[in-house]
Amino acid sequence: MISAPGVVGMHVSEVDTPALIIELDALERNIRRMQGRVVEGSRVYLRPHSKTHKSTVIANMQIAAGAVGVCCQKVSEAEIMANGGVRDILISNEVIGESKVRRVAALARRAKVSVCVDELSSVQELAAAAKAVGSTVHVLVELNVGANRCGVETPEDVVRLAKGISGCSSLRFAGIQAYHGAAQHFRTYDERQTAIGAASTKVTQAIELLQREGIKCEVVAGAGTGTAEFEIASGVYNEIQVGSYVFMDVDYGQNRDREGRPISDFENALFILTTVMSSPVPERAIVDAGLKALSVDSGMPKVVGHEGATFVRAADEHGRIEIAKSGGPFKVGEKIRLIPGHCDPTVNLHDWFVCIRDSRVESLWPVSARGALF
Amino acid sequence: MISAPGVVGMHVSEVDTPALIIELDALERNIRRMQGRVVEGSRVYLRPHSKTHKSTVIANMQIAAGAVGVCCQKVSEAEIMANGGVRDILISNEVIGESKVRRVAALARRAKVSVCVDELSSVQELAAAAKAVGSTVHVLVELNVGANRCGVETPEDVVRLAKGISGCSSLRFAGIQAYHGAAQHFRTYDERQTAIGAASTKVTQAIELLQREGIKCEVVAGAGTGTAEFEIASGVYNEIQVGSYVFMDVDYGQNRDREGRPISDFENALFILTTVMSSPVPERAIVDAGLKALSVDSGMPKVVGHEGATFVRAADEHGRIEIAKSGGPFKVGEKIRLIPGHCDPTVNLHDWFVCIRDSRVESLWPVSARGALF
Repeated sequence: MISAPGVVGMHVSEVDTPALIIELDALERNIRRMQGRVVEGSRVYLRPHSKTHKSTVIANMQIAAGAVGVCCQKVSEAEIMANGGVRDILISNEVIGESKVRRVAALARRAKVSVCVDELSSVQELAAAAKAVGSTVHVLVELNVGANRCGVETPEDVVRLAKGISGCSSLRFAGIQAYHGAAQHFRTYDERQTAIGAASTKVTQAIELLQREGIKCEVVAGAGTGTAEFEIASGVYNEIQVGSYVFMDVDYGQNRDREGRPISDFENALFILTTVMSSPVPERAIVDAGLKALSVDSGMPKVVGHEGATFVRAADEHGRIEIAKSGGPFKVGEKIRLIPGHCDPTVNLHDWFVCIRDSRVESLWPVSARGALF
Repeated sequence: MISAPGVVGMHVSEVDTPALIIELDALERNIRRMQGRVVEGSRVYLRPHSKTHKSTVIANMQIAAGAVGVCCQKVSEAEIMANGGVRDILISNEVIGESKVRRVAALARRAKVSVCVDELSSVQELAAAAKAVGSTVHVLVELNVGANRCGVETPEDVVRLAKGISGCSSLRFAGIQAYHGAAQHFRTYDERQTAIGAASTKVTQAIELLQREGIKCEVVAGAGTGTAEFEIASGVYNEIQVGSYVFMDVDYGQNRDREGRPISDFENALFILTTVMSSPVPERAIVDAGLKALSVDSGMPKVVGHEGATFVRAADEHGRIEIAKSGGPFKVGEKIRLIPGHCDPTVNLHDWFVCIRDSRVESLWPVSARGALF
């Protein structure tokens, strides 16, 4: 593991670059605001997604604010979250392969662990592994509600698998996973509302079919930062798996609210601090953050505080900024901030969060689950 | 650091996924073939780029095969290479900022360290830092030969900076860095030949101007896997900074040779092993390698051995494969191989190389400089 790019107490301008910066005040406000959307006594709970931050520190902040636990996507992330003190973990994903299934069963001895399935052979493997070590694994059936990724296609499939789960003494049928990934990035309010309306209808059909079979569906899980307001209000979903709201990014900044304005509920709390390493001509500045310091899968990062400066291209270790006349030239050695294009894969490139308050490093948090791929 | 996804002796089919796989026979052939392009006694040397593999093991294999040392892009990479036994390291990049300059000066006490500059204030900072610790830093002037990234614009600028370097007792003017990054991915032979021809002409002008001033230019460094044949034959370049040839990727697979055929000099030695985790409909398979296991900046990875299967989209932790009828459905749990779209940033996502020979894990190599960003 690489050493941290700064030390506690240092002024942010002294932090070595490229570095992943958290503005702590903004992070804390984001956590409070999202928790505030879930009204106490409403039986809707937050279960934030730790795949975004991969940090046991932030997971514990979210739980302290009222979250019931966290989600993650990988068994190795779940292990790291459990090691960091999280007691209720949903792997919002299918767990495939003997070694992973064994690890889930083992982890379920020391934390409440839930996983998703979308086919019967996984149910049998999970049941056998849990039985072998005497643990109980909670299982949700994933239903495809529009993401067209994993998940069974029909409400009838949900019932079929729920019956299979209920028949295993080492498993417990926990409910339905119904995350609409694509809808998070639908730009207009109406598109997102329509997508989650349709998802809710499909989930309701599955719940009704389950009830006819006498199977209780405790959990309906889904939602992301882009659509959470709809799932929270749906009367159907009761576990909200928001992730990106803690940090935000350029991609989410393109979503529009009901009036067509940029969504402003959550603040950019995550930045890449980068140094101008060359400015050979006035129209171009080269910074020291490229593909290995930021992810460009959802578009380029945005330069903070320089209206005329556009980050146009990332090479492996270089970023190219084009400068309109109004932007003025950058000085070599100058440190600037970038808002990441896509926060989740950007975080996964770094070993450390450098946490800032009032321009000073207040703490250094390891990205605990960085590289937790399997 | 995450534990390795397998153990030595294991069959490759037992390796957990997603995992970064090296086929050792192919890697060794690639290293030998590239070294073979540099004729002994020709005074052209290989200095492979360690930014691709970030592995002290592979760096030492390249040196054992005849390379004079390695390049890297970051001071932290140079430190890791030196710690791994590499004695001659070129940071083929500008080093900006007090802490980085201090580290270069310190490192130069225990290895031969060269860096690049493109402005005079860097020369002064390097000189002061090296003087303070009693080391000598070798300095190349970077000349822009078409990449339009860092580097001075004119041969006259090279002379101006070379004079500045020569005037510092703690620095040694080593030569010219003239890497044409963009040309590596020009698809036709003619485009690449023309680009490196123009670069060689510009470098020659700088060398002649230096000679008039009585300054000897020992090193002319540049080239990548896409253009190395031209720099080797140029009579101008004498240090060849090839990186990707050890692994190859989909992007380099699109370059064409003189006859318009795909370039076939080097083999794909790097793969992502991934598991099919869901196949809810026959036209779609979801694998467990997404944006956190592979980089899509230069296009999608390619599915090995399944002609009808196309990797079409990477989400954070999922890859979507579309299956034409001829491809046939994939079985859940099946492990398949992907050729990465772009090898360098893909390697940087992983902690371990799982090295395979005859379908068995022969060794596990840490990606020593993974995350070495600053």
